[in-house]
Amino acid sequence: MIRASIAGGTGYTAGELLRILVNHPDVTIESVVSTTSVGQAVSDVHRDLLGETDLRFTDAIGRPDVLFLCLGHGLSRAFLQEHDVPVSCKVIDLGNDFRNDPFFGEREFVFGLCELNKQKIRTAQNVANPGCFATSILLALLPLASIDVLWDDIHVHAITGSTGAGKKPGETTHFSYRDNNISVYKPFTHQHLEEIRHTLASAGSRELPSIQFVPMRGDFPRGIFASVYTKWTAKADEKEVIDLYKQYYNGSPFVFVSDAPISLKEVVNTNKGFVHVEFHNGYIHITSIIDNLLKGASGQAVQNMNLLFGLDETAGLKLKGTGF
Amino acid sequence: MIRASIAGGTGYTAGELLRILVNHPDVTIESVVSTTSVGQAVSDVHRDLLGETDLRFTDAIGRPDVLFLCLGHGLSRAFLQEHDVPVSCKVIDLGNDFRNDPFFGEREFVFGLCELNKQKIRTAQNVANPGCFATSILLALLPLASIDVLWDDIHVHAITGSTGAGKKPGETTHFSYRDNNISVYKPFTHQHLEEIRHTLASAGSRELPSIQFVPMRGDFPRGIFASVYTKWTAKADEKEVIDLYKQYYNGSPFVFVSDAPISLKEVVNTNKGFVHVEFHNGYIHITSIIDNLLKGASGQAVQNMNLLFGLDETAGLKLKGTGF
Amino acid sequence: MIRASIAGGTGYTAGELLRILVNHPDVTIESVVSTTSVGQAVSDVHRDLLGETDLRFTDAIGRPDVLFLCLGHGLSRAFLQEHDVPVSCKVIDLGNDFRNDPFFGEREFVFGLCELNKQKIRTAQNVANPGCFATSILLALLPLASIDVLWDDIHVHAITGSTGAGKKPGETTHFSYRDNNISVYKPFTHQHLEEIRHTLASAGSRELPSIQFVPMRGDFPRGIFASVYTKWTAKADEKEVIDLYKQYYNGSPFVFVSDAPISLKEVVNTNKGFVHVEFHNGYIHITSIIDNLLKGASGQAVQNMNLLFGLDETAGLKLKGTGF
Amino acid sequence: MIRASIAGGTGYTAGELLRILVNHPDVTIESVVSTTSVGQAVSDVHRDLLGETDLRFTDAIGRPDVLFLCLGHGLSRAFLQEHDVPVSCKVIDLGNDFRNDPFFGEREFVFGLCELNKQKIRTAQNVANPGCFATSILLALLPLASIDVLWDDIHVHAITGSTGAGKKPGETTHFSYRDNNISVYKPFTHQHLEEIRHTLASAGSRELPSIQFVPMRGDFPRGIFASVYTKWTAKADEKEVIDLYKQYYNGSPFVFVSDAPISLKEVVNTNKGFVHVEFHNGYIHITSIIDNLLKGASGQAVQNMNLLFGLDETAGLKLKGTGF
Repeated sequence: MIRASIAGGTGYTAGELLRILVNHPDVTIESVVSTTSVGQAVSDVHRDLLGETDLRFTDAIGRPDVLFLCLGHGLSRAFLQEHDVPVSCKVIDLGNDFRNDPFFGEREFVFGLCELNKQKIRTAQNVANPGCFATSILLALLPLASIDVLWDDIHVHAITGSTGAGKKPGETTHFSYRDNNISVYKPFTHQHLEEIRHTLASAGSRELPSIQFVPMRGDFPRGIFASVYTKWTAKADEKEVIDLYKQYYNGSPFVFVSDAPISLKEVVNTNKGFVHVEFHNGYIHITSIIDNLLKGASGQAVQNMNLLFGLDETAGLKLKGTGF
Repeated sequence: MIRASIAGGTGYTAGELLRILVNHPDVTIESVVSTTSVGQAVSDVHRDLLGETDLRFTDAIGRPDVLFLCLGHGLSRAFLQEHDVPVSCKVIDLGNDFRNDPFFGEREFVFGLCELNKQKIRTAQNVANPGCFATSILLALLPLASIDVLWDDIHVHAITGSTGAGKKPGETTHFSYRDNNISVYKPFTHQHLEEIRHTLASAGSRELPSIQFVPMRGDFPRGIFASVYTKWTAKADEKEVIDLYKQYYNGSPFVFVSDAPISLKEVVNTNKGFVHVEFHNGYIHITSIIDNLLKGASGQAVQNMNLLFGLDETAGLKLKGTGF
Repeated sequence: MIRASIAGGTGYTAGELLRILVNHPDVTIESVVSTTSVGQAVSDVHRDLLGETDLRFTDAIGRPDVLFLCLGHGLSRAFLQEHDVPVSCKVIDLGNDFRNDPFFGEREFVFGLCELNKQKIRTAQNVANPGCFATSILLALLPLASIDVLWDDIHVHAITGSTGAGKKPGETTHFSYRDNNISVYKPFTHQHLEEIRHTLASAGSRELPSIQFVPMRGDFPRGIFASVYTKWTAKADEKEVIDLYKQYYNGSPFVFVSDAPISLKEVVNTNKGFVHVEFHNGYIHITSIIDNLLKGASGQAVQNMNLLFGLDETAGLKLKGTGF
Repeated sequence: MIRASIAGGTGYTAGELLRILVNHPDVTIESVVSTTSVGQAVSDVHRDLLGETDLRFTDAIGRPDVLFLCLGHGLSRAFLQEHDVPVSCKVIDLGNDFRNDPFFGEREFVFGLCELNKQKIRTAQNVANPGCFATSILLALLPLASIDVLWDDIHVHAITGSTGAGKKPGETTHFSYRDNNISVYKPFTHQHLEEIRHTLASAGSRELPSIQFVPMRGDFPRGIFASVYTKWTAKADEKEVIDLYKQYYNGSPFVFVSDAPISLKEVVNTNKGFVHVEFHNGYIHITSIIDNLLKGASGQAVQNMNLLFGLDETAGLKLKGTGF
């Protein structure tokens, strides 16, 4: 059994990790670290875990085989500096600390987008888990990057659930504000843009066009719906491109190309990603959906763990979707 | 024109008051008092008022004819002590300070349930505006209290919108928690019970039965749906009781008896209350709906103001409901 | 008093018209026509109108001064052919029959976007009320069209509430499907595109660029949030363009330019439109919000009626927003 | 491997069964029967199953070891009459046909509330799966019935998600109606009352009091929140009763007694039931939550299948909850 520890144990992504790991056939949870809740039962904070775990929060990571960092963005480096994490312990960072800058002492972090870097991850020691927006947008674009046809401006609107903003309550996550409301934030300047550009380049896009990205706050808790389009001047027609997408994701157990238009709830509470491709008026339009907390965070983190330890990529991740 | 000032100007009930008063034909807003936002534009906080008012928050009440207190519960007495409010200025308190204890110096507060105390309010100087739960439950029971047939235990479940919990964000008003969620709070012990009992007695119930009241948190921002029943051992049959209800509310411009079952959104964003009566198995079952921020707070406060100043009771309150 | 009749009286837009007209100071409702509900009380269908009207549905339009057509798209011409509508009766069509093809016998329909055609409407006899998506997108673009700087492709994502799909229940308006769900429909091919292009041209854009428009289904009942951008190569800077917008809408009582980012609920249940402008990376990004049933349908229809009859443009339309 | 067939394959409960069974370690799906969709891919109807099954709907049940009937209420008897189901094939009926009348030819149906009838189910051939409301209310009351202290009227309000109303769209499941709305239906007369009374009697209540039950329509898709109370005149105090509940559910892998107040989403998308007990003013108040489609339908059906076939009761049912 793999011993897993989780740092930042009271947050949303830690909760999701726990929901997955309590049923993972190859994992035992070594410790759930929290600076604020030491001694408290984990199920007092993640209330739905009542009956599934008797764990309590601790301040020590114990002796894990793998450490998941579920801290706020920018806090992972500090955590590794302040804690004595054995070199033999693999690290999976759910923050953004190592996505664009993969080195920390002797540790090197591989960018953990499984659909692109599966082989690299299998032999890696540390993984920088991708951002949720980045994952949804990259799944829409990877096949095009792979044949280097991203020649023109890329236009993206993506709408995210409230859990993406974390557990700490605030004005834009207040129910009275958020319910039945829509807004835009960080238009054209979202921090995931850098991660998206890097990754498209490493996937095969030699001369990257500019990306216009408008993130939106949706009035739902889970999921990201990305709508992506760009001018299409390459030769392949719609059917050929859809075939390309299906071929590209052929080996992926979680990403599927839908022939029919998609709606967000088709992937909520699963580790799956669905993409759908249409051609219109000289444009290729790709819609892409993931659960921001699963394929966009904790689910992909476990998928990365499975790869790091040579397990079946889907172990513990055959999750029942909600459907409704 | 009546000059109206509002204390506690940044909160939800103040916002609703402003939304009503900016279009009230007989009112001019004298000042909007806030300790935290002096100098800021009112429409920077109540963003939807952009284009409807150029007012700014102040720390002085000015010289109003009427002062609305939209402070937290228990803070109204302190405000009156700390501010020099001329005796000639009428006061309408939206908090709970004067509902059960109506005296403050020379001021006496009439309980402002317009459907019960209309005549008293017309000649009053100060009004204690009823609580939102109390209003919804009392509208369901007043006609029965008036003929003194409340003989057996009264059973109440009432579900409220998130705005009832105020503007300050917290765990149970976090969108990620509240969306699609239901919970119970303060069962059997809600602070409005006292107010409800007092009022039923003053409405004609001589020997009050006990009231079991389970308040619920609903996953919507506005409205209260109350479901109320008690054993029926009086002589009148269903039709006669429905007629009693219609007669009782005949003079009320805002409360209506629906022959068909009701659903919450029928009154949202209006000052109306709907009640519906059915007999089943020896029980009388009354459902009652209001908008917690309007008939349950700011709308009723303006209705009280209209009565205090001898205006048409409906002035400024013919509000378009949302329907959806 | 203006006598108003409504055809298609049981639908959503007719309900909204009724909610407005029952409180309009200058209007009396002559008849509410429905082929399916003759004789039934209007408040049996539009349940929230209980206590506000005793009207019943009829099959005859009576002798109105103005007739609102709230029929399905494409049914207005048939209605006018089948009914004897006196030439003296003004007609306001909420469908799309006359937006791109303004003639019917001797009647000519003016495109009723009040912010563009106010003077024309004042002297017109018939109005083709704009579509909801068209209104939201045009309000974002009119000021730019007026100075003829729409030179490059225009990119639009706009997300709409479920009431836009009408009253008839279906798969994509089923609550179990729609709640917390997001989807795209008719990408790049929405029928309002033609109306948008015509109008931008008539507003001053001489060589129109292509418009990429992705409509989205939102999980809320009311409102449209449009996010619009295009490359900015004209000389004016951000501040100058914002000033242009403010100047352009200076005479409009319902459209306001917000200095702060906007969120949909700021205009829900009002006839207002808010726009917000930002410059980023060589792009101008405009967000625009309206209530699809009000400024996007019945509210604008009443605004047009006010103009047709020489009333104050805002008569009956100073609506209290929901805020929450 | 157990071969399972599903009749009524396009509905909500069939979809949930499929979501569970595609990952069940001991089951292979023999056929998914639908009269309306023969030949169509299952994942065309249950869209989220894309990538998880290549099954197509058929009109023949094949040769299953177990047949799940997911038909409308009252249609199960007809199905069994019209189809040749071998006597050796076990039948689990998710409808209400056999709950109060357990015989069909030689088949006898055991009432499948696992927490009450586990031993009977283990040796049974056929199971009548309990109703969703009945399950939630019975889980709140079984421990009290077991010691025969249900002496006084039982008061129940329970609020259910829209999926309880099935897939066919209608007025009260229209998103524009249901969103942010609350209503009551079938107060005091719901068809589950009979099932609840039978079961409490068989659990040990000798003289059953009357049950007042007000079902409510909630504005969420999944889950039932039941609030149940009755006068408490027995000797045991709050702590002793909570201990009784914990002891009663000690052997149940899915039902847990929460020391803290509960909220609905703690069990959504799981087969779990949570109950919470408080004493107030001479009343015992129990809140109870389940997912109406899982513990209230398809999850419990699989739990019953596990028992019928001697499998681990939790096989295939360790589901990740949504939490949010």
